[in-house]
Amino acid sequence: MRLSQSLIPTIKEVPSEAQIASHRLMLRAGLVRQTAAGIYAWLPAGLRVLNNIADIVREEQDAAGAQEVLMPTIQPATLWQESGRYEDYGKEMLRIKDRHERDLLFGPTNEEMITDLYRQSVKSYKELPQAAYQIQWKFRDEVRPRFGVMRGREFLMKDAYSFALDYAGAVIIYRRMMLAYMRTFQRLGVKAIPMVADTGPIGGDLSHEFIILAPTGESQVFYDAAFEDVDYGAGNFDIDKSEDLERFFGIMTGNYAATDEKHDLDAWGKVAEDRRREGRGIEVGHIFYFGTKYSAAMNFSVTGPDGQKLFPEMGSYGIGVSRMVGALIEASHDEAGIIWPDSVAPFKVGILNLKQGDAVTDAMAEDVYGKLRKVALYDDRSERAGVKFADADLMGHPWQIIIGPRGAANGMVELKRRATGEREELTVEAALAKIGLIAN
Amino acid sequence: MRLSQSLIPTIKEVPSEAQIASHRLMLRAGLVRQTAAGIYAWLPAGLRVLNNIADIVREEQDAAGAQEVLMPTIQPATLWQESGRYEDYGKEMLRIKDRHERDLLFGPTNEEMITDLYRQSVKSYKELPQAAYQIQWKFRDEVRPRFGVMRGREFLMKDAYSFALDYAGAVIIYRRMMLAYMRTFQRLGVKAIPMVADTGPIGGDLSHEFIILAPTGESQVFYDAAFEDVDYGAGNFDIDKSEDLERFFGIMTGNYAATDEKHDLDAWGKVAEDRRREGRGIEVGHIFYFGTKYSAAMNFSVTGPDGQKLFPEMGSYGIGVSRMVGALIEASHDEAGIIWPDSVAPFKVGILNLKQGDAVTDAMAEDVYGKLRKVALYDDRSERAGVKFADADLMGHPWQIIIGPRGAANGMVELKRRATGEREELTVEAALAKIGLIAN
Repeated sequence: MRLSQSLIPTIKEVPSEAQIASHRLMLRAGLVRQTAAGIYAWLPAGLRVLNNIADIVREEQDAAGAQEVLMPTIQPATLWQESGRYEDYGKEMLRIKDRHERDLLFGPTNEEMITDLYRQSVKSYKELPQAAYQIQWKFRDEVRPRFGVMRGREFLMKDAYSFALDYAGAVIIYRRMMLAYMRTFQRLGVKAIPMVADTGPIGGDLSHEFIILAPTGESQVFYDAAFEDVDYGAGNFDIDKSEDLERFFGIMTGNYAATDEKHDLDAWGKVAEDRRREGRGIEVGHIFYFGTKYSAAMNFSVTGPDGQKLFPEMGSYGIGVSRMVGALIEASHDEAGIIWPDSVAPFKVGILNLKQGDAVTDAMAEDVYGKLRKVALYDDRSERAGVKFADADLMGHPWQIIIGPRGAANGMVELKRRATGEREELTVEAALAKIGLIAN
Repeated sequence: MRLSQSLIPTIKEVPSEAQIASHRLMLRAGLVRQTAAGIYAWLPAGLRVLNNIADIVREEQDAAGAQEVLMPTIQPATLWQESGRYEDYGKEMLRIKDRHERDLLFGPTNEEMITDLYRQSVKSYKELPQAAYQIQWKFRDEVRPRFGVMRGREFLMKDAYSFALDYAGAVIIYRRMMLAYMRTFQRLGVKAIPMVADTGPIGGDLSHEFIILAPTGESQVFYDAAFEDVDYGAGNFDIDKSEDLERFFGIMTGNYAATDEKHDLDAWGKVAEDRRREGRGIEVGHIFYFGTKYSAAMNFSVTGPDGQKLFPEMGSYGIGVSRMVGALIEASHDEAGIIWPDSVAPFKVGILNLKQGDAVTDAMAEDVYGKLRKVALYDDRSERAGVKFADADLMGHPWQIIIGPRGAANGMVELKRRATGEREELTVEAALAKIGLIAN
């Protein structure tokens, strides 16, 4: 994209309403704008990050055997009355009356609706196990929304639901999802630690939350270095083999990990001193096994092999996709701005034309942009070089191709790696080869 | 996907609540399920169609120079009070109060919000023209929602908005969008005719709606055969050249086209008899130029080249993405079921195992499925052959690979083309080559 004709409004001033780094940087880098308390519009650069994250989440859900569906945002209250959660949810649920005075709500989660969809169609044990997921906007009417997209009211979440015939089958899906999560976070370029968690309003008796490490995280976390040593890739664990899943789950649950709320000094003392790790963390995912809580309450049963009636054993699995945008920035930024992991960067490359209007510089910049149209943001504004340098660092493109009149006259560009600050002078071809965008 | 473990619940009975073919077929083929009046959940096969359509729409919007954004579904009432539309919209607007009793609404369209986003950030004529689009869920609280997704309450729409410095600039974007629309519909496999339209609640003085032809369409349409003769491709029109856009627009507006509401018998009489075409049509898109209606009302101005204050000239451009799923089915089905155009089919191929449990048949079917995992639905249910034939025709896969025990023993499959009913016996390799999934 050409920055001059894009809705990517970078700002120099630090927005006074933003208390944490990711919120400040998302506003300053022009990723989002707030349209009401805790509700954000995603501008082109922000949406690209959101979509890149969603694509990685989607690929790993597909690989874990879940099928994608899309449930509506607006749900009838009757479904929630069936499960008994309509009253429980309190004021966080956005309640709505339509023109016929029927009670609706903006879904904060979808256990009831997915159970209803399966109840309508799945009648036999032969059709299970199954898992389904969606990536859809949810609403929770927080009293005091804050921290930008980290605690917004309208937020994008991947929520998956599983239906198995028995406990053993449910556990296999639970472990498979946990492995899919670790792979997802690894691909997003962050360290994640799964921790035993309370089940809260979802209910159930087996639950883990996933905390990613970020210096500005919301809680203190303590964990065994074992989590950092694991290779979560397909070479080490076959996600379709239950023995691999068991070995994986053994590592995830056999090593110490806790947030400060649940920190147990006795157990921590037993971890070898050189393997103790401590840091700040942000919760970005949560998985639950809750048995027949919803299937029984909503009377979803299937016929078993001997004709008996079985209530499927269920689980649900969430990742905060919009929250993850903020969390990634908390995990990866410096004084100058965002440092995007390559896998999610809105633009892999920023092209900086240091002398817009100079024929030679313009020609070279246009030529480079022509080659990188899909992955580059071309700063073609008539701004000073200093402004372009600052904005490129702020926006956090993994690579910058800097084109000035002197270099251009000699056929050279400067290539900068945002994460390290390393710069070198190269021909255009060598720069593209180094970035990995053309063969050498 | 394996049909036995998927939420693709085909049904044999004709649902009594569905009055039109697309609604019946979408329910019968397991594409969607209604979760409240006029509100649908998209099951895996339906979601694939929806995403395929959205991808084509997105590519053509990108090619037309529009940038993708994503605005929230929930909007503050204050924005609509600024434009004066808050009261105008009446009961079709879903009005909501949050826990602090603030007035919100589920957006039925986004002129106000996009104007506000541009107003916050764009200050100079140098940053225009720009166009932005989103593919996002909208809500219109219809009194009597019906016809399935064709007239639902929660629906997916592509809405684009443009900002230009003057009328001439606005007209160029308007024409460019019209060309992008014709290309979009062509790629979706349907014939579309643009027609002069009223501007309705959006306001403005230049507007076209796009009607696609379908035997079961909602209105009678009359048009000159000229529309069918045009090649809308890049070879004929360069979307970035204003002279090409003018020539294109001349053809679109210089030939007769009208729905029965606006049919003009005098003008129709002047169309050469052998060029008169008549049929039923469904509205799937609408574009508007409305000048400074919103920019002036909401005080969005930019500084012009001479320091003067300019209110940008705006347009908006909609395509009903979820409605299009129904419209495509209306345009392309027969007694047996849906006939998907190749470009949007949820699965390019259906694999029918006619004797599940037979070792040779299973082995061959698994082998074929292994090769086509991403594009095929494998009917591995333990159902009779007749049920599988009927369901494959119902679901409308462009191709069926039919595998029975006799053929399998000889290394042969039967390949059926859904649109023509043509069948032939082939080796697996020849079948895949014919479908175009492997080189010959």
